[in-house]
Amino acid sequence: MNEETVFTPSDREYMQRALRLARQAEGRTGPNPMVGCVIVRDGEIVGEGFHHKAGTPHAELHALAAAENRAQGATAYVTLEPCSHYGRTPPCADALIRAGLQKVVIAMPDPNPLVAGRGIERLLEAGLDVKVGLMADEAGRLNEVFLKSIVTGLPFVTYKSALTLDGRISTESGDSRWVSSPQSREASQRLRNLADVIMVGSGTVRQDNPRLTCRLPGGRDPVRLVVDGTLSLPEDAQVLSSSPSAPCIIATTAAASRDKAERLRRLRAVEVWLYETSRYVPLETLLRDLAARGWTAVLLEGGGGLAGQLLTGGLLDKIEFFLAPKFVGGNGPSPFSGFTAARMSDAVHLTGIEVSRETGDIHVTGYVSNRREHFPPGNPLF
Amino acid sequence: MNEETVFTPSDREYMQRALRLARQAEGRTGPNPMVGCVIVRDGEIVGEGFHHKAGTPHAELHALAAAENRAQGATAYVTLEPCSHYGRTPPCADALIRAGLQKVVIAMPDPNPLVAGRGIERLLEAGLDVKVGLMADEAGRLNEVFLKSIVTGLPFVTYKSALTLDGRISTESGDSRWVSSPQSREASQRLRNLADVIMVGSGTVRQDNPRLTCRLPGGRDPVRLVVDGTLSLPEDAQVLSSSPSAPCIIATTAAASRDKAERLRRLRAVEVWLYETSRYVPLETLLRDLAARGWTAVLLEGGGGLAGQLLTGGLLDKIEFFLAPKFVGGNGPSPFSGFTAARMSDAVHLTGIEVSRETGDIHVTGYVSNRREHFPPGNPLF
Repeated sequence: MNEETVFTPSDREYMQRALRLARQAEGRTGPNPMVGCVIVRDGEIVGEGFHHKAGTPHAELHALAAAENRAQGATAYVTLEPCSHYGRTPPCADALIRAGLQKVVIAMPDPNPLVAGRGIERLLEAGLDVKVGLMADEAGRLNEVFLKSIVTGLPFVTYKSALTLDGRISTESGDSRWVSSPQSREASQRLRNLADVIMVGSGTVRQDNPRLTCRLPGGRDPVRLVVDGTLSLPEDAQVLSSSPSAPCIIATTAAASRDKAERLRRLRAVEVWLYETSRYVPLETLLRDLAARGWTAVLLEGGGGLAGQLLTGGLLDKIEFFLAPKFVGGNGPSPFSGFTAARMSDAVHLTGIEVSRETGDIHVTGYVSNRREHFPPGNPLF
Repeated sequence: MNEETVFTPSDREYMQRALRLARQAEGRTGPNPMVGCVIVRDGEIVGEGFHHKAGTPHAELHALAAAENRAQGATAYVTLEPCSHYGRTPPCADALIRAGLQKVVIAMPDPNPLVAGRGIERLLEAGLDVKVGLMADEAGRLNEVFLKSIVTGLPFVTYKSALTLDGRISTESGDSRWVSSPQSREASQRLRNLADVIMVGSGTVRQDNPRLTCRLPGGRDPVRLVVDGTLSLPEDAQVLSSSPSAPCIIATTAAASRDKAERLRRLRAVEVWLYETSRYVPLETLLRDLAARGWTAVLLEGGGGLAGQLLTGGLLDKIEFFLAPKFVGGNGPSPFSGFTAARMSDAVHLTGIEVSRETGDIHVTGYVSNRREHFPPGNPLF
């Protein structure tokens, strides 16, 4: 289906607006997708809205409430297929039908097994004109976190790292203050504000003693997760007490001291997740446990060992690297350790690369080629 | 002096044209600068030209020859101060005066001690209207190689490297075929075509056995220079016989086998430069010797050890890094070895950074902060 022949430029404009609306809730809807909806009658926007937070009304309901009876005979632009199931809110497809909409333009189908085309079916059965696939790429990128988690049961993991142009995350002596520019560090705070969980290895806690809170005005503290197979973190680590508003989770193994685990458990807002493995936390299981709690956007902030394990396991989705234009030489650590490609042709590639110079550093984002498929290829709905 | 108040938009246009003309001889004028000249009378270009090659006529003479008697009362736009001395050609300042020019607009003074303002003086004494400083930054960048060498006696050294986004120039096992994209490798060939000398360490010769020729159609083979303190390169190395059109120089020390040095010297187009040091070639001396031969544009292609020594010595001017968006992990070599910043604040910085995605890789160019000043600060001519 060719997008150009099915949709008009004003269709694109309305969908663009719906996508922008949706993104207003970035980082706040997990585990739900971001969704925006614009209702248009006779060339006039009569209602619009977006999904704010899981458990609250969906975008379509906000837009319908604003449109009131002007929804009759109108066209709705929705960034994701309207739902067809009773969750914490009733099905949006039914609401659209009841309000008398004539046409629904949908950016992309919802791969959620509970929806997966049934929302579209319901609209079609009720006699509405339904068009799917307008700005599907943009909609897919908007909801990369949701799409990954709903299809795989795994959270979407972004690895943020600051490194020198010669690939070092610190000097040989361990000094990493500061690798990147103040603007890059502020951009990192924005990434924290969008994440459900900040994940680090215990080495990072021992070395840098970070708080892992979001220091943006009005920002939200994410869940802090320390992967610490041997429970080696100091009991006075800042991360254990840095935020009362979100739990700090210590993932550990049977190699941990039971006494220390008990002591940590008694701390306020601290959870100890014990896995019955020896020494190494089973990362895929840990990630599934996060997703099961509704935490689908994970920001990995190092260290290199944990990043290397995740990369090797195909569990890393995206990188946000701030490359500082400077050299430190020596044998300082690199962003991945414990991962080794034997030949250059075995390298893990990045796709969808974007490069920005806005922060003074060279900010590179890209998707990791060996990550688990977040969307079934050849989706029959397109 | 404010550029905007002194020069008109059409002045800028003519100077821009002169700069473009100059660049047509890029990589072909060493040790001379690139110079372009445009002669304008009554809003019409009556003559233009550029310096093609050391030992041939300067830009002004080409332009005057084209203008013939229309140079009378005209304005000349020159990208560099006209010379005032008898070199292989007579002084251009005199030629401009004799041709009856009324005005000369000059992008920047020539820091060559043989000129250094005396060309401008001569024009002023003859009663011409002289304006200096139009697009001086562009002119300085155009002639960065000349400016460095004329002021310091050292060649301008550019380090070209291909590395992964995790900072590796090969895998841990030594595999480097290929780090960068075919388009990046072609861009590297263009860099070779602009260089007088390609410089490598002996490790690179032993490991990769490169030819170090320019494989562009119509390209020119640069001088090949192998820095090999112990004369360890194999006698059948390709670099020794890859081009009859340019010498291959082996720089070595008293640690070299005299017999092997003699055998190499007998090869066609091979020169052995022996320094009376033990083991390590004195790099600054070697670079001065290159500049003394008229070779002022040096392209360093590795390895990391030689690059690290040059960086430590402040002998590196510019980097051209092709960052391939992929990861290989492990302990593969990085672009600099033998150089170690103790603290992050001791890092060597880059300035004037440009980033391009044209080759599919992330192509970063920049100037090394600790390099020898190529131009005296506070030049009194400005």
